[in-house]
Amino acid sequence: MDNTGYCSESFNSLQSGTSDEDMVEIAGATLDFSSTDDVPPLDRDYGSGGSYGAGDGPNGVPKLMDLLDEPVPGVGTYEDFNTIDWVREKSKDRDRHREIATKSKESTWALMKSISDAFSGWLLMLLVGLMSGALAGGIDISAHWMTDLKEGVCLNGFWFNHEHCCWNSNETTFQERDKCPQWKSWAELIVGTNNGPFAYIMNYLMYVCWALLFSFLAVSLVRAFAPYACGSGIPEIKTILSGFIIRGYLGKWTLMIKTITLVLAVSSGLSLGKEGPLVHVACCCGNILCHLFTKYRRNEAKRREVLSAAAAVGVSVAFGAPIGGVLFSLEEVSYYFPLKTLWRSFFAALVAAFTLRSINPFGNSRLVLFYVEFHSPWHLLELIPFVLLGIFGGIWGAFFIRANIAWCRRRKTTRLGHYPVLEVLVVTAVTALLAFPNSYTRMSTSELISELFNDCGLLDSSQLCNYTNVSITKSTSDALPDRPAGHEVYTALWQLSLALVFKMLITVVTFGMKVPSGLFIPSMAVGAIAGRLLGVGMEQLAYYHHDWVIFRGWCSPGADCITPGLYAMVGATACLGGVTRMTVSLVVIMFELTGGLEYIVPLMAATMTSKWVADALGREGIYEAHIRLNGYPFLESKEEFSHKTLAMDVMRPRRSDPPLSVITQDGMSVEEVESLIAETSYSGFPVVVSHESQRLVGFVQRRDLVISIENARQRQEGVVSASRIFFTEYTPPQPPNSPPPLKLRGIMDLSPFTVTDHTAMDIVVDIFRKLGLRQCLVTHNGRLLGIITKKDILKHMAQMANRDPDSILFN
Amino acid sequence: MDNTGYCSESFNSLQSGTSDEDMVEIAGATLDFSSTDDVPPLDRDYGSGGSYGAGDGPNGVPKLMDLLDEPVPGVGTYEDFNTIDWVREKSKDRDRHREIATKSKESTWALMKSISDAFSGWLLMLLVGLMSGALAGGIDISAHWMTDLKEGVCLNGFWFNHEHCCWNSNETTFQERDKCPQWKSWAELIVGTNNGPFAYIMNYLMYVCWALLFSFLAVSLVRAFAPYACGSGIPEIKTILSGFIIRGYLGKWTLMIKTITLVLAVSSGLSLGKEGPLVHVACCCGNILCHLFTKYRRNEAKRREVLSAAAAVGVSVAFGAPIGGVLFSLEEVSYYFPLKTLWRSFFAALVAAFTLRSINPFGNSRLVLFYVEFHSPWHLLELIPFVLLGIFGGIWGAFFIRANIAWCRRRKTTRLGHYPVLEVLVVTAVTALLAFPNSYTRMSTSELISELFNDCGLLDSSQLCNYTNVSITKSTSDALPDRPAGHEVYTALWQLSLALVFKMLITVVTFGMKVPSGLFIPSMAVGAIAGRLLGVGMEQLAYYHHDWVIFRGWCSPGADCITPGLYAMVGATACLGGVTRMTVSLVVIMFELTGGLEYIVPLMAATMTSKWVADALGREGIYEAHIRLNGYPFLESKEEFSHKTLAMDVMRPRRSDPPLSVITQDGMSVEEVESLIAETSYSGFPVVVSHESQRLVGFVQRRDLVISIENARQRQEGVVSASRIFFTEYTPPQPPNSPPPLKLRGIMDLSPFTVTDHTAMDIVVDIFRKLGLRQCLVTHNGRLLGIITKKDILKHMAQMANRDPDSILFN
Repeated sequence: MDNTGYCSESFNSLQSGTSDEDMVEIAGATLDFSSTDDVPPLDRDYGSGGSYGAGDGPNGVPKLMDLLDEPVPGVGTYEDFNTIDWVREKSKDRDRHREIATKSKESTWALMKSISDAFSGWLLMLLVGLMSGALAGGIDISAHWMTDLKEGVCLNGFWFNHEHCCWNSNETTFQERDKCPQWKSWAELIVGTNNGPFAYIMNYLMYVCWALLFSFLAVSLVRAFAPYACGSGIPEIKTILSGFIIRGYLGKWTLMIKTITLVLAVSSGLSLGKEGPLVHVACCCGNILCHLFTKYRRNEAKRREVLSAAAAVGVSVAFGAPIGGVLFSLEEVSYYFPLKTLWRSFFAALVAAFTLRSINPFGNSRLVLFYVEFHSPWHLLELIPFVLLGIFGGIWGAFFIRANIAWCRRRKTTRLGHYPVLEVLVVTAVTALLAFPNSYTRMSTSELISELFNDCGLLDSSQLCNYTNVSITKSTSDALPDRPAGHEVYTALWQLSLALVFKMLITVVTFGMKVPSGLFIPSMAVGAIAGRLLGVGMEQLAYYHHDWVIFRGWCSPGADCITPGLYAMVGATACLGGVTRMTVSLVVIMFELTGGLEYIVPLMAATMTSKWVADALGREGIYEAHIRLNGYPFLESKEEFSHKTLAMDVMRPRRSDPPLSVITQDGMSVEEVESLIAETSYSGFPVVVSHESQRLVGFVQRRDLVISIENARQRQEGVVSASRIFFTEYTPPQPPNSPPPLKLRGIMDLSPFTVTDHTAMDIVVDIFRKLGLRQCLVTHNGRLLGIITKKDILKHMAQMANRDPDSILFN
Repeated sequence: MDNTGYCSESFNSLQSGTSDEDMVEIAGATLDFSSTDDVPPLDRDYGSGGSYGAGDGPNGVPKLMDLLDEPVPGVGTYEDFNTIDWVREKSKDRDRHREIATKSKESTWALMKSISDAFSGWLLMLLVGLMSGALAGGIDISAHWMTDLKEGVCLNGFWFNHEHCCWNSNETTFQERDKCPQWKSWAELIVGTNNGPFAYIMNYLMYVCWALLFSFLAVSLVRAFAPYACGSGIPEIKTILSGFIIRGYLGKWTLMIKTITLVLAVSSGLSLGKEGPLVHVACCCGNILCHLFTKYRRNEAKRREVLSAAAAVGVSVAFGAPIGGVLFSLEEVSYYFPLKTLWRSFFAALVAAFTLRSINPFGNSRLVLFYVEFHSPWHLLELIPFVLLGIFGGIWGAFFIRANIAWCRRRKTTRLGHYPVLEVLVVTAVTALLAFPNSYTRMSTSELISELFNDCGLLDSSQLCNYTNVSITKSTSDALPDRPAGHEVYTALWQLSLALVFKMLITVVTFGMKVPSGLFIPSMAVGAIAGRLLGVGMEQLAYYHHDWVIFRGWCSPGADCITPGLYAMVGATACLGGVTRMTVSLVVIMFELTGGLEYIVPLMAATMTSKWVADALGREGIYEAHIRLNGYPFLESKEEFSHKTLAMDVMRPRRSDPPLSVITQDGMSVEEVESLIAETSYSGFPVVVSHESQRLVGFVQRRDLVISIENARQRQEGVVSASRIFFTEYTPPQPPNSPPPLKLRGIMDLSPFTVTDHTAMDIVVDIFRKLGLRQCLVTHNGRLLGIITKKDILKHMAQMANRDPDSILFN
């Protein structure tokens, strides 16, 4: 992997530069309380079990002294860019829980602690919701203000955005509430007038300059302080939730810089959204707040439960859709999602949504980003255009993913990647120059979507609503009948078509640059434009040809039979579905925007079509594609492993390789083990009874072994290179004059997972996915034969799909 | 288990009497195509793998001939009241899928078949949705009609219910649309008047008689034709979804009888609802429709995916809440819920909801059962009464579960259980006699809930809305201000209090009788009454004491500050939550009823409080309690296993027991194996290399072994008692004159799951849950030591919780 990759730089160069806040490596000095957590759970004294349990022999006592009273710092933790062992983490948590439950019976203080421990999860959720909601509100308000700053400034105070500026004005009417004397465009401020070509050029220039300034600031901040802050963050969060460790990815620096640069990037007018990055921001909040609670700080599995909930919170504040957010987390990003997390996510998502509402960034006390007011019914025949929109969305999604991945790969492999700042500036300049002349691209993308979603009321003054008012024959109470379009509508359609082409192309090069960038909003914009175009087309067709067979019976003159806003909504859903391959969560998010079940069938038809079409053109969604591009060890849980291979085809060593490196339970000296460690780079070694029998006893992690030996050499008297290492329960009496033995049963996992060599790989993959394993040992008739790691599986899958197995970079 | 148990009779007596439609046992005769599915997947020739694969030695050919070309019928299926092996089933399905995918490249016809196979899941979902929706519509209409029949009859046609009867009448006004001359009460019809004590007694008598008739019919039909049709069915469906087999539980007889008797039971006025049984009805539809598709007919795991979706459909049609239904299935009933199922469930739930709406059983084209029209805001201080309602709900839930389980246990163990018909008749008589005088218990429970949920409009004529109209000071457009209650409201409150006590007591004895009975509606009724009482109380308090500190500032005179209907809704949610311990799904169902996010916080506060309070008083929800009462082998996935035991403490054999019964891979004769089978009752045997080494080779199911030996004795020439059985890959040359060997490698599972004896039980439980195992072998240093089955785990858990381990009845 070279140094010029994707939006996050090469990992090797980053490992040292990140904050120590996150994915905390437990340093020796901080081990003051609950320190027994660091010992793998299975080495505890299971007194009640008792048949072969420790502690019933004379040697049980020294073992306890060696390892339980004085745990070796660092044992049981993970290195950066490594995969966690879910089973071990969950087991650790259960041990912890058990300990607290046992202690709670002893004293009132312990009982209080146990209760506070039980409620700490809820408290944490509350805090995550509050913090994310507040941050999202701040981002919304700042982005709104800075977007308007590109066009002008408020004389009452530069900190007012356009809308707020005119609220205080008495001279505005309801229809023209955006026009007021207090708000000055840059041309008005500088040359005193807003008319004429000179003023236009002045405004144009200021617009481009501000855009360049914002994007320059954004990319510089990202490069200088937090390289992880770029992109949408969802691919990395998916990987982290599946059990990977990227230190600093969810740290306080990333949070700060991402929050600031997100505002800058959105304000610069680049074709990107803030919805995806809000998920990253919420996850940072979750991760940072985890440090307040030992339960979550010390356990990677528990922490990931919080992060799953935080992802739900992110979508909840992005769209104002708490249920949709929870389903998004469940469907799209989470890996292990227990029911308890479902319930807590829901709570956190609600708290965040209501925090955001009380901040009221949109100034309309609405929870949702795009509020849809119409409730006019749709006809069954309209499913045909909806399905067409679905097909469009699917094709666009597949095209976008291919084009974007090709572009990102180009950035990784060519000189392009060496100039990220220049790249951002060029794209910003092109975007701003092309966007300004067209009013639909000049406005912010979310405003555009809002306008496209809206149905035209009688009072609407926008270009798109310039219909010829015909005398209304049937007086319906709320719905307006279909009317012929005025010439401004046709102008708007032309502008929208240009905007469509522009957005489709510019988004491809924008997503993946070194600034925070989400693609929910750009994708939705593409779909909404396409949908609105089709909707207006259908409407006019129905108006002028209401005698056609397809319109007869339901679309008589004077009836409101086509709602172009609904088409825009369906189109947006289809395109977003095509790009991300979301299904239920997408429909539910859209359902929450409308608040009624009326439109669920059109939305579902479009989503389904879009997913099928997109899947037919390319299996992966944009997030999976980026995960693969970056070589993360992510074991997709949606796709079935469909090959006929067996465990023995995947395991190492292959038949031509040297035999598996193992440690015997009582036969090796410190020196031998150290040379084994030095010669190999495996992350763990099986422990066997003897080389001859190859009967499996346990498994030790390389990291634990290194730390323990180092620690023993430093602290334990007499441990030298010739000392023998014992993994057995009872150490046989040593001959006199021999150095004291080193007992390491404590760091050995006594319950390694095994499968037989004849196990079908689909079952092995299932086990890895469901249990979250790092590795699994392979046996044949009870003898140890080899080992399969997550990386082996991913490489095997890559090979089976005719991809380069070396694209999987991490363990 | 004696013969007089719970609503479903003793299983032993039922196994023969059920339909052969369901959980189909593949009989030899039906094996015409795709018959290779019956061979355990791991015995296939994995040509591509190849290192030790079959087919590379001369003996590969006979093996293929023995087993692949002519699979033994019945191998790979399950016995009734047994647990399925999820891993095996899913592996089977993947093999099937692989085969179709490979074939599809060969011919167009195969490609068509492959496509139709891919879409069969969606088609099945569509059918399940349509069928369940139609059935639910039919049930709604019939139940409505028959409930009204207890009170009177329509002269225009006896098939009209009260409401429909009066629709056609011209003489009704909007306010009195329930009164029309065409509808005659029984007294009017018989004695010509509706006034006077005689007419009252007449109506009373007819009411009781009809109730007795309906309930007698219901219980007789259930006893005569489908004993499984009783109860709500949800505990059994949970168990079936977790991988248990109960033949006939979801069959066509159960469906028919349950549909009919559900209508009868609801109409009889018993304190029960149709919502739970609708889940059972929908699951029956799902199971029956599975028979149309080989993919689902032949695979227990795939079928359970359909059943999960069907459970969602059931709730969707019961409440008109498709999203809530899907979450109910996810949270409450399903065990293994892949994302694909989520998406399909959602589709099926929507189809069902829209089918139901087009049938329009409530006559108001609404999707939901209780449509709530008010949208008045609530104040933060109101959370206090909402939390109080939550506490009430939790206490009631815990009390109900204890009382009901105690009563059901009494029914099981005493003579009470011998007279199910009499029991139903007595309870019906008591219910009818006590219910008639009180108008709130006389009406159907869902009508009662509807009325309690509704806010009083100006035009409402019901007793509960008899407020004194004061002059309205502030003219608010839609919301009515709080008003003093009229004396009819006080009467209504008294009646409601009596109804509350009555419902609370009678529901305890009703749930679990031998008629279809759900408890969603009765629980909600209890909560709704309590909530409405509190709501009206609060309203009056706020009206008369609006100067109190707690009301000051938000509840000035003339403001509409308290909505009693909202309190009823919150109360209903709390009680339902206390009984079932649903969380997210409950809130979402309620959210769908109101269609807005306004009330989600009160609902959530009540649900959370109710769950915490109820959990503090007793861990189990009503369904889990009934599962335990019936001794089903259900491994709860919500509760953490929190004990410190190890695998060796749970495995069989115990230290004092005789050693594990094993089969050696090449050393045993047919006779020896047959005597082993005869002497033991284990459902499977490990195969080892030799008795001395105890190295594990594989695992054979008892059923497969029995069937194969029987089959070989009948069909394979020369196989006699002295024939040796080989589980090895290559059969050594036999001495001359010895009988031909029996090669059974084909039926052996070559990849049995193993754990070491030191594995903590919490990990073992996790593995069982997540992978859906039936059994797991225990090894120590590579030697086979014992076996743990699901039943062993459940017994161990029972023992740890100080319960009777023998209460677990099935494997």
